[in-house]
Amino acid sequence: MEPAIKYHLIKTEKHTGARLGEVITPHGTFQTPMFMPVGTQAAMKGAVSPEELAEMGSQVVLANTYHLWLQPGPDLVAEAGGLHQFMNWHKGILTDSGGFQVFSLAKHRKLTEEGVHFRNEINGDKLFLSPEKAINIQNKLGPDIMMSLDECPPFFESYDYVKHSVERTSRWAERGLKAHAHPDYQGLFGIVQGAGYEDLRRQSARDLVSLDFPGYSIGGLSVGESKPEMNRILELTTPLLPTNKPRYLMGVGTADSLIDGVIRGIDMFDCVLPTRIARKGTCMTSHGRLVVKNAAFAHDFRPIDPECDCYTCRHYTRAYLRHLFKADEDFGRRLTSYHNLYFLHHLMKRVRQAILDDHLLELREEVFEKYGYNAEHPKNF
Amino acid sequence: MEPAIKYHLIKTEKHTGARLGEVITPHGTFQTPMFMPVGTQAAMKGAVSPEELAEMGSQVVLANTYHLWLQPGPDLVAEAGGLHQFMNWHKGILTDSGGFQVFSLAKHRKLTEEGVHFRNEINGDKLFLSPEKAINIQNKLGPDIMMSLDECPPFFESYDYVKHSVERTSRWAERGLKAHAHPDYQGLFGIVQGAGYEDLRRQSARDLVSLDFPGYSIGGLSVGESKPEMNRILELTTPLLPTNKPRYLMGVGTADSLIDGVIRGIDMFDCVLPTRIARKGTCMTSHGRLVVKNAAFAHDFRPIDPECDCYTCRHYTRAYLRHLFKADEDFGRRLTSYHNLYFLHHLMKRVRQAILDDHLLELREEVFEKYGYNAEHPKNF
Repeated sequence: MEPAIKYHLIKTEKHTGARLGEVITPHGTFQTPMFMPVGTQAAMKGAVSPEELAEMGSQVVLANTYHLWLQPGPDLVAEAGGLHQFMNWHKGILTDSGGFQVFSLAKHRKLTEEGVHFRNEINGDKLFLSPEKAINIQNKLGPDIMMSLDECPPFFESYDYVKHSVERTSRWAERGLKAHAHPDYQGLFGIVQGAGYEDLRRQSARDLVSLDFPGYSIGGLSVGESKPEMNRILELTTPLLPTNKPRYLMGVGTADSLIDGVIRGIDMFDCVLPTRIARKGTCMTSHGRLVVKNAAFAHDFRPIDPECDCYTCRHYTRAYLRHLFKADEDFGRRLTSYHNLYFLHHLMKRVRQAILDDHLLELREEVFEKYGYNAEHPKNF
Repeated sequence: MEPAIKYHLIKTEKHTGARLGEVITPHGTFQTPMFMPVGTQAAMKGAVSPEELAEMGSQVVLANTYHLWLQPGPDLVAEAGGLHQFMNWHKGILTDSGGFQVFSLAKHRKLTEEGVHFRNEINGDKLFLSPEKAINIQNKLGPDIMMSLDECPPFFESYDYVKHSVERTSRWAERGLKAHAHPDYQGLFGIVQGAGYEDLRRQSARDLVSLDFPGYSIGGLSVGESKPEMNRILELTTPLLPTNKPRYLMGVGTADSLIDGVIRGIDMFDCVLPTRIARKGTCMTSHGRLVVKNAAFAHDFRPIDPECDCYTCRHYTRAYLRHLFKADEDFGRRLTSYHNLYFLHHLMKRVRQAILDDHLLELREEVFEKYGYNAEHPKNF
């Protein structure tokens, strides 16, 4: 059987581990490295439409299994013809396993070898998420790419705890693989965990690679550790993953981390950050973040980022956006969400070109310098 | 001097008072009868963009003087190059006088011959709106069509009160006309008041017509009176207005009232209703209103209105929209707002065609019958 997800490596950059490639899915072939916007509840936050996502270059979007399980439920989505049909997005869709949300959001949680017991936050029902259940839900939702259930322990958790957790995550990955009903048209990724412990990251990668997933995620990063810590784990982990499979760094979406992840061989990224901060009026720009609702911009008739050519920047001023945020108008959130997503997609386009030209380190220097990045006091941007 | 706003009557329908015409403004020539969406704070509610408004056939949009006076303030809008530039809408803009909001929203209100004293609801400042001030603010905002300051007394207010009010509104209209700084590129409309009193409506119309405004509004309707009451006042008022000027019925936006207004010679309508109800999940359809978040639609995979060809109805199901409302996603409000505005624009397009074909009464019958309209128990739809 052909796997549902394939990866085609086009080239490796001359001076770094960066890879230019393609992820081939049942809903199209997509260029990597790529950033994937997050539509948690089968809709993009900030009211950005699927057509607008496509127009700005989105190729794969992410939806959350946990949220969709709770509402409207996987059976309803299946009845609608699957997530693509339900949400009117006909390119790639990736869902997570639901594990991260159960461990970070759910109340009355009890973790066993079998799975996790918890309470439905909406109606108080008792729920149980097992590796098989996570797969079963995702089989019904119908994304192109699914995730194995994993536990994501805190980065600074004890060695013993993380060792047990990593071993259980490997057993869960194997159980999930067996439960997967549609390997012919949905690709299941395993998730490498191990917090900051190098030997546990190695053990996790080895376990999962032996199970031969069509792709690998790296989890448990961007959870409070420093930038050098994250880079250290990436440098250690990506060489352990097969070169003919895509690599997905979960939950990372600042310009600096995208570039530094690509340099270390990452192909796919996702993050709620661009739309989450946009809804509060914070915009990503080539000179760093700009809080457009600040009084400083009341009479500023420049676009958010004069170097940006997105719809928002071509038509609206900081003064107008500040007014919309002060007036609590949905349209302001739509415009800043659009801009931030465009900003990251545009960056990834430049990153792909720089890999082709073997100029990725020059691009990194240019981007970091323009931002005024200080390596002594690193701050995500 | 050429007036800023002109009206060109194309034809009068054979069997009714309905007029097919054009309103000629500094930002284009627009077909009437028309419905004008309301972007209170210089942005359409429900995050609908200017491009989407144009695509669905919006020609003139309305913004509220009261809200824009309070924030961001007329000087800022003028500094931005006026409302068209500020909000990225390059067709027609109409502003109201601010009076309606002062009389319905503002606290600590005191009405004198000079004007109205009240408190700024945002910062508690004392404010004063006079006929001259209303014009001065609108001159700075820069819409194509402006309104005279009027008082809109309750429909069932006493005769004596309404008589005094109408007389003051006429004096205010005259003062506003004198204060108008840009009659060459902004057209000022007078507003006929008089509640339900026929002789006061006549007096108001006579006073305003003698002042020779480039257009006339009819105010004080759709404020709680019955449909026959509204129709009675319209039948009485429009024959008193010059045929070579546009007539604008303020605050009316249900399908039945639009058709019945057109039949009585109205050219322009505005209302917050379509977007206000859309944001709560209520959709206008050819078979009446549909509350899409109701449980009945959980598994309904039809569009909001199977007879509608708008973006929302072409791509999304009731089940998906219900999910978005349950999940409190901005995108749901955008989709229903788009649909309701499209619904009214599409209706007005059919109305214009029906006037051309002298079939307006047939169209009325068809629309009312499909809705299941009961003249014994009239209900707006």
